[in-house]
Amino acid sequence: MNADKIPDIIVGRLPVYLRALQRLSEKGIQTTSSQELGDIVRISAAQIRKDISQFGEFGKQGTGYSIPFLIERLKDILKVDRVWDVVIVGMGDIGHALARYNGFANRGFNIRMVFDNDPQKVGQKVEDFEILDMSMMAEKIKQNKIKIAMLTVPATVAQEVADQLVKAGVKAILNYAPLSLNVPAGVRVQHIDPATHLQRMTYYLD
Amino acid sequence: MNADKIPDIIVGRLPVYLRALQRLSEKGIQTTSSQELGDIVRISAAQIRKDISQFGEFGKQGTGYSIPFLIERLKDILKVDRVWDVVIVGMGDIGHALARYNGFANRGFNIRMVFDNDPQKVGQKVEDFEILDMSMMAEKIKQNKIKIAMLTVPATVAQEVADQLVKAGVKAILNYAPLSLNVPAGVRVQHIDPATHLQRMTYYLD
Repeated sequence: MNADKIPDIIVGRLPVYLRALQRLSEKGIQTTSSQELGDIVRISAAQIRKDISQFGEFGKQGTGYSIPFLIERLKDILKVDRVWDVVIVGMGDIGHALARYNGFANRGFNIRMVFDNDPQKVGQKVEDFEILDMSMMAEKIKQNKIKIAMLTVPATVAQEVADQLVKAGVKAILNYAPLSLNVPAGVRVQHIDPATHLQRMTYYLD
Repeated sequence: MNADKIPDIIVGRLPVYLRALQRLSEKGIQTTSSQELGDIVRISAAQIRKDISQFGEFGKQGTGYSIPFLIERLKDILKVDRVWDVVIVGMGDIGHALARYNGFANRGFNIRMVFDNDPQKVGQKVEDFEILDMSMMAEKIKQNKIKIAMLTVPATVAQEVADQLVKAGVKAILNYAPLSLNVPAGVRVQHIDPATHLQRMTYYLD
C-alpha cells in the first residue's frame, strides 16, 4: 500500500509506536519484536505486524525489527523527519504547561510563538517566550507560514479563535477546549479531552 | 454482540460519540443521523452505524437516532451513568488546570482529592481542594476505594508514583507524563501526550 493512503486509524497508532521505539532507542536497544512493542503500547503483536506491513517489509522472521530503521521510516511517513513551527494560543495553565514542556523538540515540533489577549499577560515572559497579543496573531502566522496551533483558550471563544487561525493558514489544530470545532475540509483537528480518555477506561472498571 | 465484548478500538470511539451527542442535546436537538454525527466527529457514517450496531438496534432507516436514548445507552455501556471519584497527583500547571476544569461533573467524574509532595504546595488551596501530601496518598485512596487517578508528576518519578497508585487499588490512570508506564494486567492506562496528537496530524500536512 502506498504511504499516502494509510487508513486514518492506522495513522493514529503510528505515533504511539514511534514514541515507544524512541524510548527503547534511548535505552540503547537496537532491535525489537512485535511482541515486545505490543507489550509496551498494549496493542496486539498481530495488529502491530499488520500495521507496519502496510508500508513495506520490515524485520525478518526471528530477527525482529531494526529500531533505528523503523524510527527513521515512521518519522518519514509521519513527516516528523523535519521540524514544524507551532503556536500556542491561550496562556492559561495549559498554555504555560505546553510552553514549558521540553518534549517537543525531539519529536518534530518547535514552539515558535505564544499568544493571549489578556493585557496583563501580554508582554510577560514564559520560559523564553514573550506572550504576544492575539491581535497580532493572524499576521504573525501568515508571515511565518505556520501550519500548526495548540488552542488552549476558553470554550466560549474557541470556535472564533479557530476561525481566525484557519483564515491565517493553520491546517492542524490541537484543541484543548471541550467542544468540537467546525473547520473546513483540509484542516485537521485533534482533541485533548481528559474526560473522553477517562470514559474510555471506565468501560473496563467494575 | 454482547456489550462486554466490544473491541477496544470501538470502545475508544464511544466517548467521542457521547461527547458529540451531549453537545447536540445541550442545543435542544432530539434526533441525529450517522451522517450528521459523522460530520461532527469526522468519522464516516458507515463506521458510526457499524459501531453503534455492535451493541443493539438503534434508530430506524430514515428517522435517525434518538439522541436521549443513545446518550443513555452509551453512558450505560461506558459506565458513566454513575459518578467516579478521581484523584489528581501532581499539582503543577496541568494539575491546576485539571482541578479548575469544570467539565468533569456532567461526564461521570468527581475530583475527590489532589496531591503533591512539594511542602510549599501542600496545604495550599486550588479551587475547593486543599493540596494533600503525597505521603497520605495510598492510605486515602484505599480508604475511599478510589479507582481512577490523573497522573501529572514529572516523568522521572511517574513510574514510582504509578506503582504506589496501583498498590493502593487504582485501576485506571490518565498519564500526562511522557513515558509508557508499566502496570500489571487489569490496570488501564491512557496517555495524554500532545506530541503524539500533533504527529497524527502532520501526516496530512504538505
